[in-house]
Amino acid sequence: MIIFGIDPGIAIVGYGVLEYTGNKFKVLDYGAVITEPKDSFPIRLKLVYEGLTELLEKYKPDAVAIEELFFNKNVKTAITVGQARGVQMLAAVNKGIDLYEYTPLQVKQGVVGYGRAEKKQVQEMVKLILNLKKVPKPDDVADALAVAICHAHSGSFRDSFKVK
Amino acid sequence: MIIFGIDPGIAIVGYGVLEYTGNKFKVLDYGAVITEPKDSFPIRLKLVYEGLTELLEKYKPDAVAIEELFFNKNVKTAITVGQARGVQMLAAVNKGIDLYEYTPLQVKQGVVGYGRAEKKQVQEMVKLILNLKKVPKPDDVADALAVAICHAHSGSFRDSFKVK
Repeated sequence: MIIFGIDPGIAIVGYGVLEYTGNKFKVLDYGAVITEPKDSFPIRLKLVYEGLTELLEKYKPDAVAIEELFFNKNVKTAITVGQARGVQMLAAVNKGIDLYEYTPLQVKQGVVGYGRAEKKQVQEMVKLILNLKKVPKPDDVADALAVAICHAHSGSFRDSFKVK
Repeated sequence: MIIFGIDPGIAIVGYGVLEYTGNKFKVLDYGAVITEPKDSFPIRLKLVYEGLTELLEKYKPDAVAIEELFFNKNVKTAITVGQARGVQMLAAVNKGIDLYEYTPLQVKQGVVGYGRAEKKQVQEMVKLILNLKKVPKPDDVADALAVAICHAHSGSFRDSFKVK
């Protein structure tokens, strides 16, 4: 199974592509789609959509796993990142790929084993599980790999994380 | 100038298409792209994107005017509608059409003349300005026509409402 993980954002959209077969991971790719503040917001949405579409065409994943947004106060940021996340979901559905979403808590549980893990612990686990030489940078890339690992680990619970 | 107004949403996306020449309006079309709760959220995003894209191809507007989202507390709703609005903006930019955004206050000012107008007053003004027999229903359609009128009336201030 090929899993495409996304850490939603507008300036930096982290992604990680993993092959998961018989409990073994193979890292196919990871990185970030970057957009510049000099471009207008609509243009940045377009670049994010095109960047992800190209990657989805290249890797033809069986599933896209994307983090759920969590904001407890800043509604303005929630709307901005929400708009970007909508476009990211559209890129997947327009390629006919099933979408799964996980809360930050579920990602920590799925990668480290408990929901209160520190960011640093999650990153170290990503490095360890995927047998990487160092933690991928920026954080958004490690986060995208983490949500992809989380999806692999969701096993028989998988269907309950499908975006409804 | 052909103006395409959008009232953002996911269940009902109101739209209104106006031709504005020499301070005169001609109504080209209005209605709503409707999506059903029985479909998954990604599928609804896809239907909204396709529905708007088809309308934009048909009317080839010079500008898309879209309401800004305003939520003072419900972050969950803000994220949901934000995701839909992102896809609506993408439909415009993917057709190379300039996007303009107006706050609910600016729409009231632009249509009725003052920002504290009641919803009902705005709807009556839309009917009057466009010479319609009755107020278009649902409210989302009247709101989309209102933001299109607001854009027409923004005149020499127009550039300051372009989405940056």
